[in-house]
Amino acid sequence: MAIRQGSLREKLLSVKGYPEPGLSVVESNDEDLQRCCCSRRVICDKIASFVKSLIDVFGKAVRMGRSDPRKIVFAAKMGLSLVLISLLIFLKMPLKELSSHYVWAILTVVVVFEFSIGATLSKGFNRGLGTFSAGGLALATAELSVLAGEWEEVLIVISIFIIGFLATYAKLYPTMKPYEYGFRVFLLTYCYIMVSGYRTREFIHTAVTRFLLIALGAGVCLVINICIYPIWAGEDLHNLVVKNFRNVATSLEGCINRYLSCIEYERVPSKILIYQAADDPVYSGYRSAVESTSQEDALMGFAIWEPPHGPYKSFKYPWKNYVKVSGALRHCAFMVMALHGCILSEIQAPEDRRQVFRRELQRVGIEGAKVLRELANKIKRMEKLGPVDILSEVHEAAEELQSKVDRKSYLLVNAESWEIGTRAKVQGEPQESLKLDDEENEVLEYKSRSEAVLDLRSVMHTNWEFHSSNIGMNSRRIPDIPPEMKKQISWPARISFDADAMPHLEKSKTYESASALSLATFSSLLIEFVARLQNVVDAFEELGEKANFKEPIDQSAMEAALLPIGWWTRLRRLLKF
Amino acid sequence: MAIRQGSLREKLLSVKGYPEPGLSVVESNDEDLQRCCCSRRVICDKIASFVKSLIDVFGKAVRMGRSDPRKIVFAAKMGLSLVLISLLIFLKMPLKELSSHYVWAILTVVVVFEFSIGATLSKGFNRGLGTFSAGGLALATAELSVLAGEWEEVLIVISIFIIGFLATYAKLYPTMKPYEYGFRVFLLTYCYIMVSGYRTREFIHTAVTRFLLIALGAGVCLVINICIYPIWAGEDLHNLVVKNFRNVATSLEGCINRYLSCIEYERVPSKILIYQAADDPVYSGYRSAVESTSQEDALMGFAIWEPPHGPYKSFKYPWKNYVKVSGALRHCAFMVMALHGCILSEIQAPEDRRQVFRRELQRVGIEGAKVLRELANKIKRMEKLGPVDILSEVHEAAEELQSKVDRKSYLLVNAESWEIGTRAKVQGEPQESLKLDDEENEVLEYKSRSEAVLDLRSVMHTNWEFHSSNIGMNSRRIPDIPPEMKKQISWPARISFDADAMPHLEKSKTYESASALSLATFSSLLIEFVARLQNVVDAFEELGEKANFKEPIDQSAMEAALLPIGWWTRLRRLLKF
Repeated sequence: MAIRQGSLREKLLSVKGYPEPGLSVVESNDEDLQRCCCSRRVICDKIASFVKSLIDVFGKAVRMGRSDPRKIVFAAKMGLSLVLISLLIFLKMPLKELSSHYVWAILTVVVVFEFSIGATLSKGFNRGLGTFSAGGLALATAELSVLAGEWEEVLIVISIFIIGFLATYAKLYPTMKPYEYGFRVFLLTYCYIMVSGYRTREFIHTAVTRFLLIALGAGVCLVINICIYPIWAGEDLHNLVVKNFRNVATSLEGCINRYLSCIEYERVPSKILIYQAADDPVYSGYRSAVESTSQEDALMGFAIWEPPHGPYKSFKYPWKNYVKVSGALRHCAFMVMALHGCILSEIQAPEDRRQVFRRELQRVGIEGAKVLRELANKIKRMEKLGPVDILSEVHEAAEELQSKVDRKSYLLVNAESWEIGTRAKVQGEPQESLKLDDEENEVLEYKSRSEAVLDLRSVMHTNWEFHSSNIGMNSRRIPDIPPEMKKQISWPARISFDADAMPHLEKSKTYESASALSLATFSSLLIEFVARLQNVVDAFEELGEKANFKEPIDQSAMEAALLPIGWWTRLRRLLKF
Repeated sequence: MAIRQGSLREKLLSVKGYPEPGLSVVESNDEDLQRCCCSRRVICDKIASFVKSLIDVFGKAVRMGRSDPRKIVFAAKMGLSLVLISLLIFLKMPLKELSSHYVWAILTVVVVFEFSIGATLSKGFNRGLGTFSAGGLALATAELSVLAGEWEEVLIVISIFIIGFLATYAKLYPTMKPYEYGFRVFLLTYCYIMVSGYRTREFIHTAVTRFLLIALGAGVCLVINICIYPIWAGEDLHNLVVKNFRNVATSLEGCINRYLSCIEYERVPSKILIYQAADDPVYSGYRSAVESTSQEDALMGFAIWEPPHGPYKSFKYPWKNYVKVSGALRHCAFMVMALHGCILSEIQAPEDRRQVFRRELQRVGIEGAKVLRELANKIKRMEKLGPVDILSEVHEAAEELQSKVDRKSYLLVNAESWEIGTRAKVQGEPQESLKLDDEENEVLEYKSRSEAVLDLRSVMHTNWEFHSSNIGMNSRRIPDIPPEMKKQISWPARISFDADAMPHLEKSKTYESASALSLATFSSLLIEFVARLQNVVDAFEELGEKANFKEPIDQSAMEAALLPIGWWTRLRRLLKF
């Protein structure tokens, strides 16, 4: 949005540079006629483009209304409160003698009327407190200043400076930020009463009038905002948390599918490289969950002002725990982010090796996403976890992946370049091995003896095949590159073209080994993701306990009801294949 | 801050529950006396605690002022503008007949006076535009409504509803968010002029008066805010980006040092698990860089309003590129976050194995942090990069690490559990190998033949030693656990205590292998971090180009000047060792 502000400003600045019509009146008649036609055409074009942009704006407005009808309701409510307050002023009711200060009532409606009820209450409270305390202080100072006699004006001016200084300084203190608006109202009220009172000598009248009219405006706001189609910040927070869970689940699945189908970025969108919003569904999924921190905090700040309503039945409802659950989810989302980093990286594991772990990786991904979706549904329906351990499946899948990695870890390393292997052939680098501690050396000795018998040529051969198949695979990459894409990180390029002592072959091997290790990284990040799920479940259970979620509906009874269809479907599937 | 708001509200609610003094007057005299003493003591205590909290608040205020003296200046400027506007009203100058509407001038000062000049200009523009357009529209509607005769009131009320609806609906459109304040002012002005004009029949007078007084208030604001000790949002943005670079560098170094000295979290602070601010320096370093997105956007939104000043000499200064550089840094910071994840994880590589890579890991860490600090200094001094490639050292270090990992990758895997090794002994699981594609099978056959000769007992033995030394190492962990710490993720616990078919020994091995792979993960994340640095350097170069950074001071000349001292120091060091 800040960018938009900039662009508008630029537009405003560039207006000055426009060619002004009607500058060339001194030209010949013929040209005049042409110009006239021209200018008429220009005017027509302008009208057409104006109408077009009007239709465009209308279209956008309709789309916004469809995507969130509450916005239309809110705008209508705002219009209604303004009408109501205007009518009260027109009809000079209910406080006839106050109507010359009606501006405060309008101001209150315009300022206090917010989208959610929590925000309205919070602002109303700020406004009330600010007005009330400033009013009291102003009356006290006014009494004092009258006693001061001829120094009255000086006293008033000094008091305004001191109060202005203190209130402004206090509102800069970090924990005072939610009361920022209250401090502003405080200052305004104090100055207004002092100045107005000095002019009219009606300090008390001014203060009371102002307070009553603000109360009137706030009353109209609250009645209309709460009684007609209330919009709750708490509900928004609840939905936001659910949405975050679903987004991370989608991202996780997307990451693993892309990794296994080897869809690489030919060029990484530059927006991802500078962490701005981009269209990539995998990226935007976890990004929205990571970025929602401030939105959650704001919604929580409003939600705690809201009275019990709908399914949120208790006073002191644990809104904080919703934010906690979302924070725990974020801790998981960072692992999905790191997984995505493996896809973004230029060093990629060969496709064939990925396929060896396909089943296990996919299973962990599916089970992980299932857990996240299940939790999302539980939060949505406000249900506790059942007696079944929600994590057992995903933990089992992760264990399976781990043991597969364990059994096949030779695929993750490049045995040919092991120091112990080459040492048997080349009798160089004694310094290096001397530096190692004794225990290490022992292993090396053992290894080097045994390794000498180990024929590694076949592995090397296959590695090269893997590598070339990886290069051949490039044709599978996403084909069309939009112009806003940026050149990819030039890491392996550096490795290949750097002119130092290492021969080219060794570097290729290093690249190869790095590429194989990248698969190990992907698996261990995925396992770490699974480990972090426990934390989310713990946070969820705490929320369920504090918010009094209902016990889950008996699953077995539901399954029993669905069983015949289940069997029928399975049978049909069996017949099909 | 939202939490604070909550706590205040809770405090306010709990006030009701206080025991009221003076409820027990019907008791005996003796008790009365005691009670009197008691209440006197209570009052004394209360006064003492009040004085104490007052001193506390004062201390906090002094500390805030010391850490950022601009806050004091800003508060004093605010006081000064209020005094100035009050004096203008007192002296009934310069527009005598307007002084009955002085409230608008005070309101403008209170609302428009913001911390930075950009913010003040942006708000002032919003206020001016809102007032001006609403004034025009209101006058037009007023003319129309007069023509409507007896339907005038109906027309006014309907117009208020329509304008209220449209303006509120428009401000909800996402790209309109920076103009939110403008829409509010628009609504207020429109309603005020309509209502006031209807009452006094002085539509034009009201509109013009209001506009002039707002202009007066805004003028006072701008003059004081710009002429006395100006505070620029652009400068803040510049410093914020520099600070982010330094924080990430500190985090990176901290991560690597902790990893190498095996300082593990006995219990991970629960704040990290739910991604809230915590004291941990490694965590807070990268967190502040990751979390500064919204602050940067806000500062950029203000900075583009600021006229050229100080070192930012051009119109259309590329503030956007500062945000871009910071975004690219954030992309790196996510890798530091993932590195920190390796320390947070319960599955840890054995210390002895980490020590094998100590020199390389440390070098990458030091060089990486050096690059970040160097970039921070360059941005701070607004200098371009020199002819020397800033990344050459860190790339070399990363290559060294990679080749070390390559040579010693047998330390990263657990060869004893390789399928191909066990197959030679156990003739089981033929299904598994059948599923693999032919090429894979070929490798396995080759491997199994060669592996049969390979003596793996020694590796196994040493692995167990590593493992036990890892357990013994626990005594090095941070000893005291504050109560707000939470139980760690129960991942390996699950593995050990789960009662399924796998025997206990195999599980331990799986854990062991996972722990060794964690070292591989750490290294490859570190290498990915280095790869992402290129992206930061690119963004920096773009910034340097667009913002016209100066050419760097000739380093060799400076070094030549420093050379004698350098040599002397080196000599001394040589003599010392």
